[in-house]
Order: sequence, then C-alpha cells, then structure tokens
Amino acid sequence: MNLQKILKDYKKNKVSLKQLINFLSQLPYKKLKHSTLDIHRQLRRGVPEIVYCSGKTPQQILNILNTLYTQHKFAIGTRLDKQKYEEIKNKLPNHTYYDVAKIIYVGKKPKQKIGNILVITAGTSDIPIAEEAAVFCELLGNKVNRVYDVGVAGIHRVVEVIPYINKAKVIIVVAGMDGVLPSVIGGLSKVPVIAVPTSVGYGASFKGLSALLTMLNSCAPGVCVVNIDNGFGAGYIASIINKQSK
Amino acid sequence: MNLQKILKDYKKNKVSLKQLINFLSQLPYKKLKHSTLDIHRQLRRGVPEIVYCSGKTPQQILNILNTLYTQHKFAIGTRLDKQKYEEIKNKLPNHTYYDVAKIIYVGKKPKQKIGNILVITAGTSDIPIAEEAAVFCELLGNKVNRVYDVGVAGIHRVVEVIPYINKAKVIIVVAGMDGVLPSVIGGLSKVPVIAVPTSVGYGASFKGLSALLTMLNSCAPGVCVVNIDNGFGAGYIASIINKQSK
Amino acid sequence: MNLQKILKDYKKNKVSLKQLINFLSQLPYKKLKHSTLDIHRQLRRGVPEIVYCSGKTPQQILNILNTLYTQHKFAIGTRLDKQKYEEIKNKLPNHTYYDVAKIIYVGKKPKQKIGNILVITAGTSDIPIAEEAAVFCELLGNKVNRVYDVGVAGIHRVVEVIPYINKAKVIIVVAGMDGVLPSVIGGLSKVPVIAVPTSVGYGASFKGLSALLTMLNSCAPGVCVVNIDNGFGAGYIASIINKQSK
Amino acid sequence: MNLQKILKDYKKNKVSLKQLINFLSQLPYKKLKHSTLDIHRQLRRGVPEIVYCSGKTPQQILNILNTLYTQHKFAIGTRLDKQKYEEIKNKLPNHTYYDVAKIIYVGKKPKQKIGNILVITAGTSDIPIAEEAAVFCELLGNKVNRVYDVGVAGIHRVVEVIPYINKAKVIIVVAGMDGVLPSVIGGLSKVPVIAVPTSVGYGASFKGLSALLTMLNSCAPGVCVVNIDNGFGAGYIASIINKQSK
Amino acid sequence: MNLQKILKDYKKNKVSLKQLINFLSQLPYKKLKHSTLDIHRQLRRGVPEIVYCSGKTPQQILNILNTLYTQHKFAIGTRLDKQKYEEIKNKLPNHTYYDVAKIIYVGKKPKQKIGNILVITAGTSDIPIAEEAAVFCELLGNKVNRVYDVGVAGIHRVVEVIPYINKAKVIIVVAGMDGVLPSVIGGLSKVPVIAVPTSVGYGASFKGLSALLTMLNSCAPGVCVVNIDNGFGAGYIASIINKQSK
Amino acid sequence: MNLQKILKDYKKNKVSLKQLINFLSQLPYKKLKHSTLDIHRQLRRGVPEIVYCSGKTPQQILNILNTLYTQHKFAIGTRLDKQKYEEIKNKLPNHTYYDVAKIIYVGKKPKQKIGNILVITAGTSDIPIAEEAAVFCELLGNKVNRVYDVGVAGIHRVVEVIPYINKAKVIIVVAGMDGVLPSVIGGLSKVPVIAVPTSVGYGASFKGLSALLTMLNSCAPGVCVVNIDNGFGAGYIASIINKQSK
Amino acid sequence: MNLQKILKDYKKNKVSLKQLINFLSQLPYKKLKHSTLDIHRQLRRGVPEIVYCSGKTPQQILNILNTLYTQHKFAIGTRLDKQKYEEIKNKLPNHTYYDVAKIIYVGKKPKQKIGNILVITAGTSDIPIAEEAAVFCELLGNKVNRVYDVGVAGIHRVVEVIPYINKAKVIIVVAGMDGVLPSVIGGLSKVPVIAVPTSVGYGASFKGLSALLTMLNSCAPGVCVVNIDNGFGAGYIASIINKQSK
Amino acid sequence: MNLQKILKDYKKNKVSLKQLINFLSQLPYKKLKHSTLDIHRQLRRGVPEIVYCSGKTPQQILNILNTLYTQHKFAIGTRLDKQKYEEIKNKLPNHTYYDVAKIIYVGKKPKQKIGNILVITAGTSDIPIAEEAAVFCELLGNKVNRVYDVGVAGIHRVVEVIPYINKAKVIIVVAGMDGVLPSVIGGLSKVPVIAVPTSVGYGASFKGLSALLTMLNSCAPGVCVVNIDNGFGAGYIASIINKQSK
Repeated sequence: MNLQKILKDYKKNKVSLKQLINFLSQLPYKKLKHSTLDIHRQLRRGVPEIVYCSGKTPQQILNILNTLYTQHKFAIGTRLDKQKYEEIKNKLPNHTYYDVAKIIYVGKKPKQKIGNILVITAGTSDIPIAEEAAVFCELLGNKVNRVYDVGVAGIHRVVEVIPYINKAKVIIVVAGMDGVLPSVIGGLSKVPVIAVPTSVGYGASFKGLSALLTMLNSCAPGVCVVNIDNGFGAGYIASIINKQSK
Repeated sequence: MNLQKILKDYKKNKVSLKQLINFLSQLPYKKLKHSTLDIHRQLRRGVPEIVYCSGKTPQQILNILNTLYTQHKFAIGTRLDKQKYEEIKNKLPNHTYYDVAKIIYVGKKPKQKIGNILVITAGTSDIPIAEEAAVFCELLGNKVNRVYDVGVAGIHRVVEVIPYINKAKVIIVVAGMDGVLPSVIGGLSKVPVIAVPTSVGYGASFKGLSALLTMLNSCAPGVCVVNIDNGFGAGYIASIINKQSK
Repeated sequence: MNLQKILKDYKKNKVSLKQLINFLSQLPYKKLKHSTLDIHRQLRRGVPEIVYCSGKTPQQILNILNTLYTQHKFAIGTRLDKQKYEEIKNKLPNHTYYDVAKIIYVGKKPKQKIGNILVITAGTSDIPIAEEAAVFCELLGNKVNRVYDVGVAGIHRVVEVIPYINKAKVIIVVAGMDGVLPSVIGGLSKVPVIAVPTSVGYGASFKGLSALLTMLNSCAPGVCVVNIDNGFGAGYIASIINKQSK
Repeated sequence: MNLQKILKDYKKNKVSLKQLINFLSQLPYKKLKHSTLDIHRQLRRGVPEIVYCSGKTPQQILNILNTLYTQHKFAIGTRLDKQKYEEIKNKLPNHTYYDVAKIIYVGKKPKQKIGNILVITAGTSDIPIAEEAAVFCELLGNKVNRVYDVGVAGIHRVVEVIPYINKAKVIIVVAGMDGVLPSVIGGLSKVPVIAVPTSVGYGASFKGLSALLTMLNSCAPGVCVVNIDNGFGAGYIASIINKQSK
Repeated sequence: MNLQKILKDYKKNKVSLKQLINFLSQLPYKKLKHSTLDIHRQLRRGVPEIVYCSGKTPQQILNILNTLYTQHKFAIGTRLDKQKYEEIKNKLPNHTYYDVAKIIYVGKKPKQKIGNILVITAGTSDIPIAEEAAVFCELLGNKVNRVYDVGVAGIHRVVEVIPYINKAKVIIVVAGMDGVLPSVIGGLSKVPVIAVPTSVGYGASFKGLSALLTMLNSCAPGVCVVNIDNGFGAGYIASIINKQSK
Repeated sequence: MNLQKILKDYKKNKVSLKQLINFLSQLPYKKLKHSTLDIHRQLRRGVPEIVYCSGKTPQQILNILNTLYTQHKFAIGTRLDKQKYEEIKNKLPNHTYYDVAKIIYVGKKPKQKIGNILVITAGTSDIPIAEEAAVFCELLGNKVNRVYDVGVAGIHRVVEVIPYINKAKVIIVVAGMDGVLPSVIGGLSKVPVIAVPTSVGYGASFKGLSALLTMLNSCAPGVCVVNIDNGFGAGYIASIINKQSK
Repeated sequence: MNLQKILKDYKKNKVSLKQLINFLSQLPYKKLKHSTLDIHRQLRRGVPEIVYCSGKTPQQILNILNTLYTQHKFAIGTRLDKQKYEEIKNKLPNHTYYDVAKIIYVGKKPKQKIGNILVITAGTSDIPIAEEAAVFCELLGNKVNRVYDVGVAGIHRVVEVIPYINKAKVIIVVAGMDGVLPSVIGGLSKVPVIAVPTSVGYGASFKGLSALLTMLNSCAPGVCVVNIDNGFGAGYIASIINKQSK
Repeated sequence: MNLQKILKDYKKNKVSLKQLINFLSQLPYKKLKHSTLDIHRQLRRGVPEIVYCSGKTPQQILNILNTLYTQHKFAIGTRLDKQKYEEIKNKLPNHTYYDVAKIIYVGKKPKQKIGNILVITAGTSDIPIAEEAAVFCELLGNKVNRVYDVGVAGIHRVVEVIPYINKAKVIIVVAGMDGVLPSVIGGLSKVPVIAVPTSVGYGASFKGLSALLTMLNSCAPGVCVVNIDNGFGAGYIASIINKQSK
C-alpha cells in the first residue's frame, strides 16, 4: 500500500506536509472506492457481475462478456435472445447457452451444488422466467429443484409439492394471471418464499400487475416479491439466502 | 283488462275510431310497462325489491319499508347502520334486524329453506360482507351453510371445507387482501363460484382492487366476480342459481 | 383397489405392521389425489379438460389434443389461430375447427342440446368472444341462442330480445366500449347474467377496463362478471348453471 | 371613450406625440381587456359570474356575493353548505337558498323561462348534482323538466321518459355507479346529451371514475361529458345550447 | 296504416276480438319500433347512419355502404384506411374519399352549408382527428371554419383566433399532450366548446389520458368532452347544436 | 397414535375390514391436518401465531391473546392501538406493550438474541413501521440493530451505515416518499435487503405506491419487497432468513 | 484541523505509524462527511435546513427549532398548523409565524431581497401553496412578486401579468384542476417556470394528478414540475436559480 | 413604425379620426403580436424554434428546416430517425446529424461554450435521452459535461461524480427503472437538478411512470422533473438556467 510508503517518505522529508495533505485529500474517494471494491470482491464470491443483454448490440455483448471472462475466468449474460446468440457464439470462448432461460455462461461451470433452492411455477408459460432464476442459481453453485406447472386449480398438485418444500432452504414461486400460488406455497412452508409475478395472461391481468398486487397482499407471511418477470432478481436473492443458510 | 272493454265499446259505437286509436297510441308504453311488470312479478317470487339504505335518512327508509311492506307483506333493507335502525325500530311493524349483515327484514320470515348455498370467507374481517350475502339468501328462502375464516395460508383448513363444497349448488367466496381463496375453492368445486372481493386490507390492497383483479384473473374456471364489498349482489345471483337448480 | 389387498395381506402376515403404516403414510396424498380426481371425473361429465392454445407451439398443441382424445374420446382447444390450425389439421383425427370462435373440437360431437343459454353481443366486433362462449357451450351439450349486434343506442333492438330472454336459463352478454348492455339486459331478466367485457374500442376504453368497471358497477342485480375477453370462462360457468337448472 | 378625447387633444396640440404614443402603448392590454369585457358582457346576458363557495369562508362568500349583487343586481353562488349559509343569511339582501342544490341566488329571479332543458337522474343519490344543474339553469331563465330516479334496470321507466325527451332542446343525464343511463337516453334522443358522472357508489365505482369512463365510451353519438359531480358545468353548457336553440 | 284497417275490419266482424287482441299484443314492440324509427327518421334529417369501418373487412364495408346508399341515396363511413379504400373504390358508386379524415362519402354531397362550426387544433398532429370532425360536419350540411396549429405556447396565436370564435355557433377544440387549448378557448367564447383529447404525445401523456383529464377539469365553463380521438363524436354533437341554433 | 391401535385391533378381529377402511377413508383429511400441524409446530419454533388487532374489538383481542397464551406460554399482537390496549391491559397476564411499534407481547420474553438484523429508515416518519419490524424480530429472539433517519439526500449519512451493513445477516429498509434508500443500501450490501415502502408522504406519493414502485424497480440486485407499511411481514421474513443463517 | 496536528505529531514520533494509519483509515467517512458538510455550509448560505413539521409533535418541533436556532441563529419550519404553533409559540425565541403559508421563522429575518421571483396562482384556493413558496423564498433573501388568481378562463388576466413576467428571473406557477396556467405562462416567458400542481379540485382532478399530468405534458418548453402541493420544493429550486442569476 | 406615421398623417388631416380609430381597434392583436414576437426574438437569442420531427413526413421536415434556416441562419430538429434523415440529407444545406441524440442541426454551429451543464445517466440505456439533452444544450452554446452509467448500486461511482457536480451550474439527471439517481445527486449538489425519467425498463417500471413518481417524490430539495423521455425539455430549461447564471 502506497499510503505507508508516502507516510514514511514524509517522515524522511522526501515528501512535504503540503504534498502529503494533498495526497490525503484524495483519499476519501480512493479509500472508499477501495473498500467498496472490497465489498464487491466478497460479493463476487457469491454472485458475479451480470450482463443484462436486452437492448445491447451483439458486438457490445461480445465485448463485455470477453472482458468479464478475462477478469474473472467466467461471465454471465441474461436476456440474450437466441438470434443475438447465434451472431456471437463463434467468437466466444468455451460457453453454454440456455435458450429457455436466455442465459449465457462463459467459462468453466462450478461443480459444487450447495444448499437447496426450490423453483415452482403455476403454469407452463411461467417457465422461461422460472428457468432464468433456476439456471442462474445453478451457475452460482446452488442446488436447484424444479417443480413446474403446479397450478392451484387442482389442490392435489400442490399437495404433491410438499416433500420438495420441506427440503428447501428458500423457494422461488413464479406465477402470472391470478398470482395465487405464492400465498398457497407460503402457507405450507417455513422458509422464505420469493414471489415472481409474470406478465403472462390477458384481460385484467394488466401485464403482471394483477399478479404483483396479489403477491404483495399475500396473507401468508414469509412471502416477499420482486419485479414482474424478474427471474434474475429472484435467483440472485435466493442464492444469497441459500448460501448463507446452515 | 280495459283493452277488451274499450274494444267492445268501440264495436258498440260507444267509443269512436279516433278515441280508440288515441287510446292505443298510449299502448306501447302501457303494454310494455305491463309486461315488464309481469316479469317483475315473477322476479319477485324469487327476489323482492330491496331498499339500499346507505345515504338515505331514517325517515326515508321508514317510509319506503312501510310502503313495500304494505304491498308485499314483507320488505328488506340492506346497509342499514345500527344507529339509523335504532331511530326507526319502534315505528316499524314486526321485523328482525341483523346487525353484522346490516340487513332489516320486515314481516314474517319464509320458513322453507331450499337448495344449498355455501358462503365462505378468507378472514374474520370479511364476515360482514359474507353475512350480507348469507342473511339475504336465507331471507329469500335458500338454505345456507357458512364456513368462515378459511384462509389459504393453512391448506388443511381448505381441505376441511371439501365436504361442504360437495353439497353446495352454488358457492359464494368472500376475500380481501390477496383474494386467493376463490381460485382455490374454484379448483375443488364443480358448481358456480361467486367471488366477492372486499375492501379489507391495507397498503397495496387498494381498497379491494387487488383482490378484485386476482379474482378476475382466476385460473380456475367456474369463477365469476361481483363488485367490491357487494355481498348483496353475490347473494342475489346465488339465490337465482340455487333456486333454479335441480 | 390395493388398499383392501394390502390390509388382507397384513392380516395374513404377508405384510408387516411397519410396511403397512409406511404404505398408509403415503395415503393422504394418494387418497386426496384420488378424491379430487373423482371430483374431476364428475366435473368432466359437464366440462372436459380444455387446452388453452395461445402461446403453445403447433407441435405441443397437437400432442396434448391427441393425448386428451385418446383418454376421453374427445378434446377441446381454445384460442387456436387459423395459422396454427392449418399446420396441424392433417395430423388430427376427426375434428371440427370454428374459425370465428378459434375453437377446435376433436372427436364426435355431443348430440343432445339441453337447457337454454342466450348469448348476446352489443356490437359486431364482440362476436369472436361471444362465439368462443357459444361454441364452447354447444360442444358441452348445451342449447344456445345467439342474438348479436343488439347495441343499446336503439332501445327497440333491446326490446326485440325480450322473448329470447324469457326463454333462457342463463344469459351471456358480451360488450366492449361503454359496457352498458349487461345492465340493460339484467334489468329485463330473472336469470343469471354473465357479463363479458371485451377489449374492443379505442381512447378511454383502455382495452376493456372501462367496460369491465361499468359491468362491475351494474345497478341491475343478477349480473356477475368474468375477465376481459374471457369468452371461455363465461361459457364454462354458463354451462354449469344451465346444466344444473330445472 | 377617452381614446377619442386624447386623439382630439393631440390634434389640438394639448397632447404631444410622445404622450399619445405612451398612452397607446398601454392600449393592447387595456383594449384587449375592454374587448374581452365586452365579450363577457354579452356572456353575462346569458350566464352571470358564479361564486364557487366551497373552500371559501362565510365572510369571503358574503363579500363576493354583495359585490356582484351591487354590480349586476343579482349574484349566484354554488356549493354553499347549509351551515355556511346560516351564518350569512341575515347579512344578505333579498335572496333564495336551494338546499338540495346548495345554490344561493341573491336578487330578483328571472321570470321568463325559455326553451326546454330536461334533467334526468339514474338514482335518488344523483339528485343533489342534478338539482345543482337544474336550479342553475332555471336561475338563468331556462325552462327545466326534471325526471328523477329513472334507473336502467327497469327499461319501462326509460320508456316513460320518451315524451319528455321528445320535447327537450338539450338533455342533462346524471348517473353514478355503472353510468349506463346517458347511453340509453342518447340512443332515444336527437338533441345533445350532457352526461354528468357522479361519485355516488362503492367498490369499483372509484368515486365516479367508472361512470365517467362508461360515458366517455358511450356508443350512442350525441353524448358529451363533464367532470364528475359537475352539475354546475353541465347546467352552464346546457343553458348556452338551450338559449341559442330555435 | 294497417291499425286503422284492422280496427275497421274488426267492427265489420271480418276480424274477431281474439284476433284483434293478438294483433295488438304485438304492438308494443312494433309500435315502439315504429316510434323509434320515427325518431330516427327525424334524426336522419340531421345525421345519417354512419359506418365505423375500423375492424371490418373491405367486403363488409362495401356491402354496408351499398345497402345504406340504396336506402338513403347517400352513405358515410369513418376510419376507413386508404388501403381498404383502394380495394373497394372501383366497386362503389359516385363517391368522395377524404384521406386525412379517413372518411368516405357515397352519393351526392349536400350543397347547403348552414350555421358556423369552428374546428381548432393545438398542433399539427391533431389534424387527422380534427379533419374527421370537420369533414363529417360539412357532409352533414354544416358550414365549417378550420384554424389549425394554434398551440398555446404563443398566446398571440390564440388572440388571432378570436374573430373566428366570435362568429361560431359551436367550437370543437382538438388537442393532445397537455390538452390546455380548450380551457383557453373556453375562456374566450360564449358558445359551447366540444373538447377532443388526442392520443398524440409521449411519456406521461398516457395515450391521451393526460389531455382528457385536463379537459374534464377545465376551469372555463362551457366546455364538455368526448372520448380520446373521437373526432366523429365531436362532429356529431357539434352538428346537432349548430343545426338547432338560431 | 390410534392408527397403530386400530390396525392391531383389526388383526385381532376386534375391528372388521369394513370398519377399518371406513376409518382410513377419513385419513386423508386427518392425516394431512396432522402433517400440516406438524409443519406448523416447526414453524412455531421460529415464528409464533400472531394476532392482527386492527379491526378487532378489545374483547376479541383479549380472548385471542389469552387463548394463545394458554397454549404457547406467550402471544403476540400487532397493530394494537394504545386506546384499545388501555382497555384490556388490566385483564392480561404479565406482558409488555410497545407503543411506537403498536405491538403487545404476553408472557416471558425470549432471552437469547441470535444473528444480526439491521433495520434502517429513511426518515423519522418511517419509524413506527420500522419499530413494528424491529420489535417483532427481537421478540422472536433475533438480535436487531437500528439506524434511523438515514435519508439519502446526505450521502455521508449512508456512508456511516456501512459498518452496520457489513455485520448484518439481513437488512430491512423502511422508506416512504421517493423510496430511494433500499436501492442505495442494496448497492452496498451482500446480504438480502427487505424493502418496506411506507404510506408516509403527500402529493404524488399516492400513499406509498410511488415508493413501492421504486423499490420493485430497484437496480440493485438482492432487494425484495413487501406490502406498503407491512413492518410485520418484513420482520417475519427477516427473522426466518436470520435464523437459518450460518 | 487535527489532520495537520497528527501528521506533525507523527513526524515528532509522538504518534506511531500504526496509530496514524488507524486514524487515517477512519478518514474516508470523516473526510467525506467533512466535504459534504462543506457543501452543506455553502448551501446554507443560500438555503438553510428546514423542519417539515407535519407528523411531528409540538414538543419535537420545539426541540428541533431551538437546536437549529442555536446553531445557525435562525430556523425555518414548514407545514406548521396554527394549532401546533399556538402550543409552542411562548417557548420560542423571537420569531414570525405565517399562517397562510404555515411557515415559522425563528430568528432575525434577512434584510436583503435579491433578484426577482414571480409567484402566480390560477385560483384563490391555490394561494396557501403559493404562499409556502413565496414566504420561503423571501425568508431566504429573495425578492418576490405575487400575482394571484390569474385563471386562464379570462385571457385578459393573463395579459396583465406580462409585465411581471418580463421582470422575473424565475417564475413559480401554482395551479390545480386543469393545471393549464403553467403552459400559458411558459409560452410568454423566457425564464424557467416551476409548475406546482395542487390537490385543489374535485371529480376527475384526482387530488392533483390531473394538474400534474397537464404540467408534465406542457407544450411550452422551459416548464419543469415539482410534486403536488410542494410549495416548499418549488421555492427551494426557485431560490437557487434566482440567486445564481445575473 | 407605422403608428407614428398614421398619427402624424391624422394631424395633417390625411387620415380621418374614424380611420385612425379603426386602425387602432386592430392594435390589441397587432400590438400584442408585435410584443410577443419581441419576446420571442429575445428568446431566440437563447433558444431557437425547434422542429419535433416525430410524426412528420421527410418532406414536411425538409420544408420546415429549410424555412427556419432561411429565416434564422440555422435550424434544429429533434426526434429525427436515421431513416428519415437518410431521405433528406442530400437536400439540406450544410448540417450535422447526431444519430444517438436523433438531432439535426442545419447551419454553422455556435463556437462559444458558456457556463457548465452536467448531464448524468444512471444506465447505458438512458444515454439516447441524455444525448438529446446534451447535444441540444451544446448547440445552444452551452458547455456540457457528460458522466454516463453512474448507477446507484455502487455508491463509489456516485462519489466519483462529486467533482463534476461541484463545477456545474445546473445538472440534468436521466434515469429509468427505479429513478433513484436524481435524489442521490440532489443530495450532493447545491445547483438545480433537472430529473428526466426514461421509459427504459420492464415489469412494474410501467414505461417510466415508476421513475417519474420516484423523482416527483424526491426527498432531496432542488430537484424538479420533466416528462418521461423528454431530453429536449430538460436541455431547454437547463440552457436557460445556465445562461442566466453568474
């Protein structure tokens, strides 16, 4: 660290008091930057920097992924359309593309799978958002169970999920239309439930608003909510909770 | 009927052609009025005219109830606050006041209880609206079962309701906050489910809007919805369905 | 049923007490599943399982329809675009496609037509949603009358519908823009009215929201509402009511 | 007019060119003020300046009414609560207070009643807003017919209004909840219909928003809309139309 | 009229009492239909039946226009896209197509131009809606003045419109974005102002909702509002007012 | 357990096969109830049943608290107004009332304080909701740090919170008005952030809706949201996460 | 400054390197705090810290005002109800209370009045919010002109304001209902216009939302918007702009 | 000026009194027009007339730009898509097209760069709107600093912006999604902050509404807001403030 050096130089009169104070006046920013970077490095042990590919050109995505890969030996991109992927796939190093989840992983995938995250969907149309969450969690080294198309209209399907619920450290429930499922799962679970409303539906579903409101008003405590269609956000927080669980 | 008489009088030349045509020119309105009155009389066999007491003065309520009672030998008022009731109770003939349901019934109550209407609530705060529906149905001669405070957080409570569901001809489900219960009940039932959102709740429940949207988007077919807090409306339509059921 | 067998085997000491209890511990789920299936079987007498084709690939639709057809000797799909239908029609067994209603029926159609469901629209643009309801009801074995383009601007058109109203067991009213028609029909009818708002319109119709609110606030009791454009949902509940009517 | 005088004085050299130009430089504002005042004077023949009393103190109301009365020999105040009226009534000259309409008229009322304005309400709770419109129109010298509590649930009531409709030059329709009535009346009428949504209702009526949207989406041409509860605004425009009618 | 005949035949015993009563029992509908048709005929003197072409196929439009033309010697269609027009133009009799207004007129246009309707727009993007109103009014035989692109940012432009305002019997003001213009014009005018919000704009204009709310809350009395982009509705009501003006 | 007994009795022929099957046919409900109760018992180790006191009468609250206390040796009530508390305090056993948090705890408080939950507020008006969360967490045996009135307008205040952030297992951030704080804290933290919007504010804060939307759209991953003013819900989920953390 | 001292002490070996580094490690926070405080001190030359009194108890307000007064020789509180003021006025040092603006100023008021801020209202009900802005600006040492009740219905009133507009460095326009005035003023002005929507109005004014949207959509460039009823916020930004103006 | 001439002619009897008054009666409009043009000329020194190209045809844009260029020696167009630009570029005189900002500048660009406007964005997707503001400001002769992609998730990035903040006369902050950045920047700045919400985002960002609300509710005073995506509006007001700053 150059701070030590400059302090010693100052003592040796190689650096004047004025020069030293001038140097120190820059410290708040530098120091803070350093410490937040430090936080970030810790964070990265759990969750790496992610590229949100929607709205970026293939060339931009390619550059950012390569840069991140060079720095960290891996890189993750979300919301990468198949079409854009096709344009860049040959210019990328060793990688995997998940087309339902629309996620790309560049680098060697983590082997270890710790904890237990359960990802549930109400319908089949909720699966792409659920996969965004599930694949993302797996790529961060979490063990993931999937139970899709549970619905709520047939309560027997819900009952079948109970054994999976009992094993989970955290549960992600993805649902559109009436957004009822997180309340039902929350009532059966003793671990945190991350509810993800989806924009699936028509009429008064208002692109996920109806499901969002249902989830926010959930009568089952232990349910919190992320933005509509935000599979990535749900996966991120689920991964944090899972990894810090006993 | 005076139509027959006037036609005969016309034939007897007691009434001129011009007079007759003049009389007939009024007919469309009279005749229609007659036929719709006829419809109304049939309706009244099932459902009498109802006084919506909210926003009326005690004196106005008293007058209308007395008039209806004189005509039909009974009268029903909804949304009658206890306070207003206290002011008029001594000036009314034989009657019953239901203070949770805020309903007044003037006259002799029907004895027969036909069919089977099930009224379910999610929470205890939904009970006043549910009672408005249930009492109203009973006063129209329907048999009513009540299962209150079912929630959805504890699925075992829902399972206990199944035997009641299997006996019902029509089900009214009253729920605020997340409005989840009608979807769950709808998934277990083969009869029509009338969902009533309530304005119970806080925060993003938006005075029942959240529950209303959940119910409209219900993934369980067989669910239809009435206005927020409209226990009377739910009871009315449930009574029609129950009475015309085999 | 294997329960009887295992109990007998247990008595014969072919099965130990521990094995038996282990078996029974699975029962809650199995048993419940059984009973709900039983409910479902009853349901299916009235209403079969329906495939919501929107958002599914032609291949997925084809597979599900074939599976359902094999199980039940018939299958119904809704929201099937003509284009998708063209891709699968040659691979399906004996079937009928209704292009206005966007419904496909695979199998032999029911002959009997019971009860009387009246389907009314306000305008011509409401017809596709009305047809979804009407065709669906017919395919479930209900008798259906259609009166389309009634409007409300010309009250004489409404008056002409009265004879049909008087014969119906349940009425579906489909309307966009001002959503006025269900209130008017509800005022003339003594049977349940299922109101379907449509997303037809422009400006402050807000894709059916305006019509939805009008219908929820209907001053005519006996009116309940389903989601915007939900012809299928209206048909489903109308079919239940019609079939259980005297 | 002093313009003439100053121009003559200028010619007589009593006023310099500079003084004259200085005077004229003020003219745009003065002149415009003058001409708009002129417009206003014409306006006032039809419609006087009105005091919106809500949110003003009794003393403020008293002062403004007295000032206007002194200028124009009459004055009108709207939204004057009975309580405030009681506080000022003894300090006002000859006047009339309409307590349902919450309107005060100071001065001698106009005798003549020209044209024909029809004011209709859907329910009894809409009457205060309707009276605001009706009384205001009468005070401006219009002939007014009132038909209240028409509803729409019983179409025979609507039919009875037809004779009044046929005589009107302009129709004001006041309705809350579903806001259906203006569409129905608009379909029967060949004169302009001014629709006034009211904040009467509960649940998804959203304080008049539902009725407002219904009216804006009215399928009957010839209907225009004013703000929720704006009886005064409806009366104002109806008066203009009525007075300029043949 | 056959009523007279049947009554005479009845007197001559050519028709029995029962037959007569049977005939009369049909009257309410027929009679009402007749009287409303009568109303409609009167209406048609002012405003003919209009075809809303949006959402109809070219063939449907062609058929309806031809039918109306045969009946009334003229026909009007609104919201007719140029593309659809191109497909039918050769199969239509003598007609005119207004491509900005998207209106088609089949038949001989009215020569007389009575009264004075002023159509004003705030911006250039509001012109198509304004033209829908203006052309429609002209085709109904009204005299129309147009002042487009007045804005409100430059008050001098507003001042220039004053002479046109002073000559008008009724004013249509078409504006999007802030929807300010009707309030300003309303403050300068003593005739009715019909405000038309347009869906022009971006951001928090919310497809005309912002302009709509501004107009409903207009502080200038004498302003009423029609639906967003509803040039036809504004023209219709303006035509009624203009034609019945002295 | 009587299942074992009845099975043994059956083997001993004390119970017939039919009786046994009859008994077992009740099992699904009983068994499920049992297992969910079991789940609930586990839950209760972490989080007891809570009484939501708002909307209940003092007598009702008293009864429920006493019942729960008898069962579990403690009971917790939320949203208990001081006024109601005053009415029941003398009839309750040993208890503590937290008047800012509006929470009552009946029984002996837990001594152990495990983990580390950080509760932060943006302003002073957010404190009651924050206290609801914080007190509730403490009563469940969690260690809680509070940093209130951090704001965001002065970034130096945020920086001061960093040491507390670095020690927390989970963070609750309570904020009204602009709802900005959770995003800022989320950007500094590697543990889950539970955001609680409050209804504090005026104007376009729309009773917490603005803050809710800000939080849902948070650009900092690791943030999830509970309902407006739902301090209890935030505390519940924070407690679960904290307790299952290493 | 102790940094200099500790550095000198270190050179003199009174402080060890480790101690010095430990001290410096605290610097980022301290230093930043210092620099932001520095920013704040500069800010305070223009704008002091303000107490938002709404939602605080009289005692809390008293304490904060006294603390701020001790530090800065003056203190300002906004949204202080008269009732609360009455409770504390005798315990405060030399001060002024503005009851329309609901502002309290403790200490000696600034004498100088620099620049020129124009505060305009559309109606009389907008005056309290305008006074909050105007008084606040004056207390910060700005020269303020007020022109209230300009309306927009009478354009001549607007024209009269032009001379004031031409002298202003920045203009605050306060308006409810239709919110039209800022657009009109913006079109006449070449300085920044701060628009303040007010919650004054009824019906579809939606507590200021309508005015807010109008202002955001203003077609006159140079207009920006603050929150509904946020007179303080408008005054704050106007003061900054005025003070930094030539 | 012809006013002087006509006055002199009047004195010389070349013009009669009547003629003079007739001339003067036109003055209000002429005079006002003159004076507002004068205002506009002054305005134009700071901000020229701008062409909003969206919704105009290439030919229309070409004509307007050429006309403005002829009058003022320069012209500016905003929201000009690249595609439209390609169609007209060869027919325009010397010009520059900014494709990210979608701005065209015809004529010789201003050399001088006065003051200091800082333009900040939260993310990369906000850059096009920021560029609209920044380029526009530069073309009006303002000095502009850009700091893009600051985010808020990493507070160290914000800290780095402080030096730029301290140099600015006015700051434009462009942000979508959670809209948090203006509050943070506002808390660090003593100059006006113009917040621009962008429609960037998904889910409950509701096309910029969420960011708009956040900004309106900003707890940092000194923040005002323009319409969603209104980079031009922000640039316009920032330019005014910057140019009138010391």
